[in-house]
Amino acid sequence: MGSVLNVIKIGGNVIDDETQLQDFLEKFAALQGKKILVHGGGKVATRVANGLGIEAKMIDGRRVTDAAMLDIVTMVYAGLTNKKVVSLLQRFGCDALGLSGADGNTIKAVKRPVREIDYGYVGDILVDSVNSLSVKKFLEAGYTPVFSAITHNGIGQLLNTNADTIASALAVSLSKIYDTSLIYCFEKNGVLRDVTDEHSVIPTIKANEFDELKAAGVIYEGMIPKLENAFHAIGKGVKNVYIGHALNLHMYQQGGFGTCLLAK
Amino acid sequence: MGSVLNVIKIGGNVIDDETQLQDFLEKFAALQGKKILVHGGGKVATRVANGLGIEAKMIDGRRVTDAAMLDIVTMVYAGLTNKKVVSLLQRFGCDALGLSGADGNTIKAVKRPVREIDYGYVGDILVDSVNSLSVKKFLEAGYTPVFSAITHNGIGQLLNTNADTIASALAVSLSKIYDTSLIYCFEKNGVLRDVTDEHSVIPTIKANEFDELKAAGVIYEGMIPKLENAFHAIGKGVKNVYIGHALNLHMYQQGGFGTCLLAK
Repeated sequence: MGSVLNVIKIGGNVIDDETQLQDFLEKFAALQGKKILVHGGGKVATRVANGLGIEAKMIDGRRVTDAAMLDIVTMVYAGLTNKKVVSLLQRFGCDALGLSGADGNTIKAVKRPVREIDYGYVGDILVDSVNSLSVKKFLEAGYTPVFSAITHNGIGQLLNTNADTIASALAVSLSKIYDTSLIYCFEKNGVLRDVTDEHSVIPTIKANEFDELKAAGVIYEGMIPKLENAFHAIGKGVKNVYIGHALNLHMYQQGGFGTCLLAK
Repeated sequence: MGSVLNVIKIGGNVIDDETQLQDFLEKFAALQGKKILVHGGGKVATRVANGLGIEAKMIDGRRVTDAAMLDIVTMVYAGLTNKKVVSLLQRFGCDALGLSGADGNTIKAVKRPVREIDYGYVGDILVDSVNSLSVKKFLEAGYTPVFSAITHNGIGQLLNTNADTIASALAVSLSKIYDTSLIYCFEKNGVLRDVTDEHSVIPTIKANEFDELKAAGVIYEGMIPKLENAFHAIGKGVKNVYIGHALNLHMYQQGGFGTCLLAK
């Protein structure tokens, strides 16, 4: 196995708060070794869409990315947010390189097939979506890739893609080259035994313990798909997955960061 | 001297026309050897700004980039336009990599000093602005860098920068490593002897001939600063500068493209 790689996902809440974003990025920049950042969208896209009189289209309660909305998320995620993050990382001494999946052909998705609902320009990730050799070239050249959640289909169409899925797909694909960990940063201290108590973080969960915790009702509903995706990534070669608070990221390499999910 | 590099600048008019843009990018993708694309803005930024109720600020007839306008040009130039161009180049088999100056710390500018006019978040290029080693890493790894006209100051501030100047600074800086030509693509066939006759292209202009043509009034006003910048780049190490029609780019490597400016 080669060297260590950390793939870190940061969500929209931190992106939307300038002070928290700077705090998080300073901690991210200080992490040792090879690393990748994947960022979500935040509320700016909705604000820009509203300002331009473009309504968020929903079908059966699910968001649809039509052509106008694709332009907006491309502008905001791959443009404004990505370049803000990159320039702040440069300030903190991290040689960041902002990417969409089209850049260096790093992530190729397929437009979601139309069945009951036409989701529009939404990209689904397949097992061979990540071009790990392209991403490796950037890592080996000393850059820190910073991915927005915009991908392409390889024949000229950009696609809006889920940032959690991108982070997971990157980690799985790169685990063939690096000793890879995946870190989901969010606004809680980790997986909590008591959802109202931030001090009740479960330090580690092994795959066989996950079913028990689910059955016992300890893991609340919103966390279940997150953890299922995490254990899926572990099953595909990722060494471990951490879930913890974005602003505790400085604790990651010294121990005590969030919940660590392990194969066994 | 190492291998050949072509730095190609494309302006806003072609960017705004989907059909012309695809035509141009297909021709760009077909160029042999190492190459860099620098693209201007186009009218989308103005349209988005108008839509969001942000007025273009002018002082003494000169455009000012305030914080709101900087967000817009970052969204449109580094986001929408850059990613559209990159995904189309990928379609045409060119492994494009979209960059702002913050990405890989490739171009560091300084905020224009406030004298009579405060231009806001406008970045001026200095002699050491281009990080040629960073750009070289991308070129040597087989990527085609695609620059939008957004730079940074190295300490977290993005800046709006003139695309012609970026193209020229890249060409000058990289001429220390590569046998570099600079190609300005615009909507005329070249430098014309008669501005009303597209067939009156002057095939070559040497530095010493430029002053004569200027004195004789052959070179019309709008072309003078463009040519002065071009001869400045040649004086700083760029092998030659071409000026020609964007949609004639396929003729560049077979001869007969636009006007070639030479040192002597």
